[in-house]
Amino acid sequence: MRTDYAVVLVTASSRLEAEKIAKALVEKQLAACVSLTPIHSIYTWKSEVCQEDEWQLMIKTDLRQFEQLETQIKQLHSYEVPEIIALPIIKGSADYLNWISEQIQKY
Amino acid sequence: MRTDYAVVLVTASSRLEAEKIAKALVEKQLAACVSLTPIHSIYTWKSEVCQEDEWQLMIKTDLRQFEQLETQIKQLHSYEVPEIIALPIIKGSADYLNWISEQIQKY
Amino acid sequence: MRTDYAVVLVTASSRLEAEKIAKALVEKQLAACVSLTPIHSIYTWKSEVCQEDEWQLMIKTDLRQFEQLETQIKQLHSYEVPEIIALPIIKGSADYLNWISEQIQKY
Repeated sequence: MRTDYAVVLVTASSRLEAEKIAKALVEKQLAACVSLTPIHSIYTWKSEVCQEDEWQLMIKTDLRQFEQLETQIKQLHSYEVPEIIALPIIKGSADYLNWISEQIQKY
Repeated sequence: MRTDYAVVLVTASSRLEAEKIAKALVEKQLAACVSLTPIHSIYTWKSEVCQEDEWQLMIKTDLRQFEQLETQIKQLHSYEVPEIIALPIIKGSADYLNWISEQIQKY
Repeated sequence: MRTDYAVVLVTASSRLEAEKIAKALVEKQLAACVSLTPIHSIYTWKSEVCQEDEWQLMIKTDLRQFEQLETQIKQLHSYEVPEIIALPIIKGSADYLNWISEQIQKY
């Protein structure tokens, strides 16, 4: 059984928005688990250096759901171009990886 | 010399548990460095959406030690199925990667 | 167009140092975005287990800039051997990945 376990990173504008997105992903079985962390972001927008307090979502999922995951996030997100990037899980505890698979609906 | 540098992610129930696991991994030379961060987790357990404050461990190590690392974490961890997942380090500062190698015992 | 999108992890000794490095990377278009998070680190230094509060930088960039990124970080960093390690972005929202490319100067 091919799997594409990954950690998907998304940033949100507030804790409220982060929780709303995380709950929707878990309830719709697009993610097994989502952790939230407050962060301070520095970036450029239209050549201006900007700074903002945001919230980082770390989404543990299977990338075969990526299109549905991306669609769901964009539907709920307040940003025009939200960060949605995937880091590969190349090894893991077998029982935990199985738990991820059990939580995720095969769309 | 083949290397498998990686960042291994583990979540723990409290700061105390996170520190206990981190110290054991570093003292037994199963990890070069472990960083701890408070997180808020949202996940499903037996079809119920749950929320909990946890601690995230980011373990900088070499995956050739993964079995010993996994065994040590499971011995100390309070969860039945702890998160233990590895992200690959594909590039890095040579002197820092050498430092990782020097810290880790070849089991 | 080959791309090497990645998240580069760096730890800094203080928020001030973290912000100084992050601003320089963004202003010089070596990074599209940098997020900062307070962390607690446990590691060994000359066989002693040490603990320290630090700041984690998560740098969203393209690894074709890695040498320039590494040089810039080392010029500004207070550590002799700073953590500079790259995790591969293997999938992402197309418009966000394009945004990363637009922010980064082709050196």
